[in-house]
Amino acid sequence: MSILPKSVTNLIEEFARLPGVGPKTAARLVFYLLSKPADDIERLGKAVSALKKDLTQCGVCFNYAEKNPCAICANNERNKKLIAVVEEPLDIVAIEKTGFDGLYHVLGGVISPIHGVGPEDIRIDQLIHRVREGKVKIEEIILATNPSLEGEATAMYIHQQLSSEPVKITRLARGLPVGGDLEYADEATLSRALEGRKEY
Amino acid sequence: MSILPKSVTNLIEEFARLPGVGPKTAARLVFYLLSKPADDIERLGKAVSALKKDLTQCGVCFNYAEKNPCAICANNERNKKLIAVVEEPLDIVAIEKTGFDGLYHVLGGVISPIHGVGPEDIRIDQLIHRVREGKVKIEEIILATNPSLEGEATAMYIHQQLSSEPVKITRLARGLPVGGDLEYADEATLSRALEGRKEY
Repeated sequence: MSILPKSVTNLIEEFARLPGVGPKTAARLVFYLLSKPADDIERLGKAVSALKKDLTQCGVCFNYAEKNPCAICANNERNKKLIAVVEEPLDIVAIEKTGFDGLYHVLGGVISPIHGVGPEDIRIDQLIHRVREGKVKIEEIILATNPSLEGEATAMYIHQQLSSEPVKITRLARGLPVGGDLEYADEATLSRALEGRKEY
Repeated sequence: MSILPKSVTNLIEEFARLPGVGPKTAARLVFYLLSKPADDIERLGKAVSALKKDLTQCGVCFNYAEKNPCAICANNERNKKLIAVVEEPLDIVAIEKTGFDGLYHVLGGVISPIHGVGPEDIRIDQLIHRVREGKVKIEEIILATNPSLEGEATAMYIHQQLSSEPVKITRLARGLPVGGDLEYADEATLSRALEGRKEY
């Protein structure tokens, strides 16, 4: 690659650091940009550089925000008695699309002994504090961590920690994904779908 | 998405313009960046902004370059009698990996009547000029356009245009890709592999 101009190899290396972007994809992206007008490239560069400027963290839900509290926590039309507990801010984007109108709590990870992440490393204490000391009485906590081993363990741990509080604790349903094919469903998912069957 | 900070949606939109990057991938990339230190983000932003600065085009082969002529054309250890004709600068990156030591000629596209691209819109005249007027006598032109309909048509057109010149004109071999599986090869590829068979 030494035959490429330095600015080109430099950006290929930077792009290749991104998750899911290998050196070939990175090269393709850079050559695509090279074929674009300088203004388009400059706009992308500025958008990257500006990403974290004026960005703060919401002191209530710990999502990325422009103000503290964030637009969701400050919105009085949302149901403040309902909190969805998620692993990462990106999960909020997915849940928002469903029309969910409660608030969120971003854990900032999952309990994972293998990676040296204990309960004290994610925002479980802050969640308990919200339940106990919050201005609005919370009625339901939806544990919306991923349906992975670590997500399940984290949900179970939080459930235990909150069991003595007068709050309803629920977990996202597991079952067949909509549009999925029974034939290709894995055993664990199909077992969960049977367990959680509903009357027609 | 309106619940996301403006700088976040802005970068998601910019990333989603890149080829092969949908809005979901774009969001994943942006949230990945958000989890990184500000320095890393700034480095990427600067790499993007600096991409086209100090970049020029080689007046000989029309590749992107830091100087004119480019590092390849200016390198006296390369075989200047051999030219590989490619569609885009990215193709050079692929060919360089094979250890090819000749020079290149970037057409900047292919002849494509459907897209309104005629022979005069790509750098065929410049190639003919290189063959006729170049300081070094060119002995072989390898037509390394893609093995697509348009790539073939462009190669054929260039072949016709150069047929009266005293230069050997070759085309990249078509056949089974290395590591490929005969069972999954398409008809056209297999026909070409049979046609081009070699004595053992």
